[in-house]
Amino acid sequence: MSSAAEPDGGPGRMLAAYREMALAEIERRLPYGEPASWLYGPLADYPRRTGKGLRAALCLATCAAFGGTEKDALPAAAAIELAHSAFLVHDDIEDGSAWRRGRPTLHRQEGLPLALNAGDALAVLGFDVLRTGVSGLGGRLGTRILDEFAAAMWRTLEGQALELGWRRDGVTRLSTCDYLDLVVRKTCWYTTIAPLRIGALIGSWGGVDLRGLTRFGLFLGAAFQITDDLLNVTGGQESYGKEILGDLREGKRTLLLVHLLSVAEPAHRQALVSLLRASDAERDDRLDWVAGLLVEYGSIPFARDFARGVAEAAAAAFPAAFRPAVRPEAAELVRYLVDYVVDRTR
Amino acid sequence: MSSAAEPDGGPGRMLAAYREMALAEIERRLPYGEPASWLYGPLADYPRRTGKGLRAALCLATCAAFGGTEKDALPAAAAIELAHSAFLVHDDIEDGSAWRRGRPTLHRQEGLPLALNAGDALAVLGFDVLRTGVSGLGGRLGTRILDEFAAAMWRTLEGQALELGWRRDGVTRLSTCDYLDLVVRKTCWYTTIAPLRIGALIGSWGGVDLRGLTRFGLFLGAAFQITDDLLNVTGGQESYGKEILGDLREGKRTLLLVHLLSVAEPAHRQALVSLLRASDAERDDRLDWVAGLLVEYGSIPFARDFARGVAEAAAAAFPAAFRPAVRPEAAELVRYLVDYVVDRTR
Repeated sequence: MSSAAEPDGGPGRMLAAYREMALAEIERRLPYGEPASWLYGPLADYPRRTGKGLRAALCLATCAAFGGTEKDALPAAAAIELAHSAFLVHDDIEDGSAWRRGRPTLHRQEGLPLALNAGDALAVLGFDVLRTGVSGLGGRLGTRILDEFAAAMWRTLEGQALELGWRRDGVTRLSTCDYLDLVVRKTCWYTTIAPLRIGALIGSWGGVDLRGLTRFGLFLGAAFQITDDLLNVTGGQESYGKEILGDLREGKRTLLLVHLLSVAEPAHRQALVSLLRASDAERDDRLDWVAGLLVEYGSIPFARDFARGVAEAAAAAFPAAFRPAVRPEAAELVRYLVDYVVDRTR
Repeated sequence: MSSAAEPDGGPGRMLAAYREMALAEIERRLPYGEPASWLYGPLADYPRRTGKGLRAALCLATCAAFGGTEKDALPAAAAIELAHSAFLVHDDIEDGSAWRRGRPTLHRQEGLPLALNAGDALAVLGFDVLRTGVSGLGGRLGTRILDEFAAAMWRTLEGQALELGWRRDGVTRLSTCDYLDLVVRKTCWYTTIAPLRIGALIGSWGGVDLRGLTRFGLFLGAAFQITDDLLNVTGGQESYGKEILGDLREGKRTLLLVHLLSVAEPAHRQALVSLLRASDAERDDRLDWVAGLLVEYGSIPFARDFARGVAEAAAAAFPAAFRPAVRPEAAELVRYLVDYVVDRTR
């Protein structure tokens, strides 16, 4: 592993190396059997569409930073990425999304029923990989890690339910606080907080105070999600890999939309509220109009500033979170990810 | 608990008592929190729609038969019923079913996205209940039970994939063997084999040979599923709780349909094959025609005889499976279930 001397090359290469490690572990753990074309093939699809590997990298780097080896945290990192894939398959169905990582979503490829079932299988696989992977850590630490993982799953399910409930029931009176509550649950717990906490628990053999990491992960995850909201409006289709303006079509309550709803003049606000209670198809014809309002009312720079502010809060929380770290170059990778999550283009 | 002296009253009351125990345990383990109306409420819906409780009863009775107390197996029994509820929620989406246990399916009630998410939550809850429940059994036995549970989940996912794949791709060249392979995976493993094996492992503290139970569970589960296929055609809407002829509408390859396809004269067979490749809506208009063919070609008595034959095989396999049993009245309940699964009306 290279040192932190090269601010771009070093951690960037380390992130890539961690992603490769996690992918190799996932590949090693993907099951084969029959029916291959209806189950084992489809379940391997998303895990093999190379993502950012952010969750795995956070887990591996944090484990290393707190005194473990990357190998110790590899099953947990793979399990978190598999759970992520499971969520993506079901999210794409729930949202009616068309594209994922540059290719058609699984339910468009396999049909909804087989995609749903493959998503279930990925969730079972994630649990399998985690519980067999932590069995070597001893009963008490192993149980604690399973508890952490399960808690993150519950927060994610809650966040997902909130987001879907807001859309189904046409909820539009939402503050930035409501948005942040959503994001902490639907994104932060499984994307940043759990990978950090689980990595630290494994690396320190259960001996580290996790509160600083939770605080850091919360800001890091929020910066990540707000950047995702932004990329959905401002990103390039090819690098982003999802539908541009897809969030608007699906009626997702992104930070941009929450801002727009709070500052738009009454006539615009009323038209937006009606549109959010309409069908995806009806919204489809008005996407450019909504995107125009986001520009007109400054929602894009608002969200960009917000993401920057939250990233700064993450950077400020970093030193306390990683004070007990024993391997500086691994901690440095985590620090690097703060800028990475807001500067990324995918 | 009453003795086996009353062939109907005794085991029947015992089955009801076991169902109540499992329901109380599930009720005790159902989580509360926010969002209640979008997650914690919907996830409790199917578990509270009283089912037969067959899976829980098998697990509790087998544990007791092999020397444990019912309480020892209660978390496992609850976990199996919760996994069953999770499967039902997702199955109903995959099949586009309208009714479940006498009420609208969850996705018709909550919309597909929130129902899908609630199904995910039920699966997470099942794992949670099981892993925390077996932690008191010691690491080695606990791990073995988690392995059994996971293996049953995988077989179920495979069976579900087979069934969905056959329908999506219009597969109609199916023998009785293909049907039985499907049923062993989609039904037997989690309905009978896993409850029996897990119950026996807990009751005997891991000391019993499971092969006889697997064999018995295989026949019992097949008899259960074929009876379900029959009830879908011949049952009363009210007692059955699902749509009568729903399997035909959904194009499910039931034993009745597999028989019909194999014996129908070419013109009928060709028309059936076309209909199975049509949409659910197109099939909806021809349900009575297909039901008429099932009568004309004797598919209903064929399936009834088949179920009886498989139940007899289960009865024949019972003594060897339960030879090491130490509590006869608990074993007697399991024996009673052989007749129960084929004689039931729901």
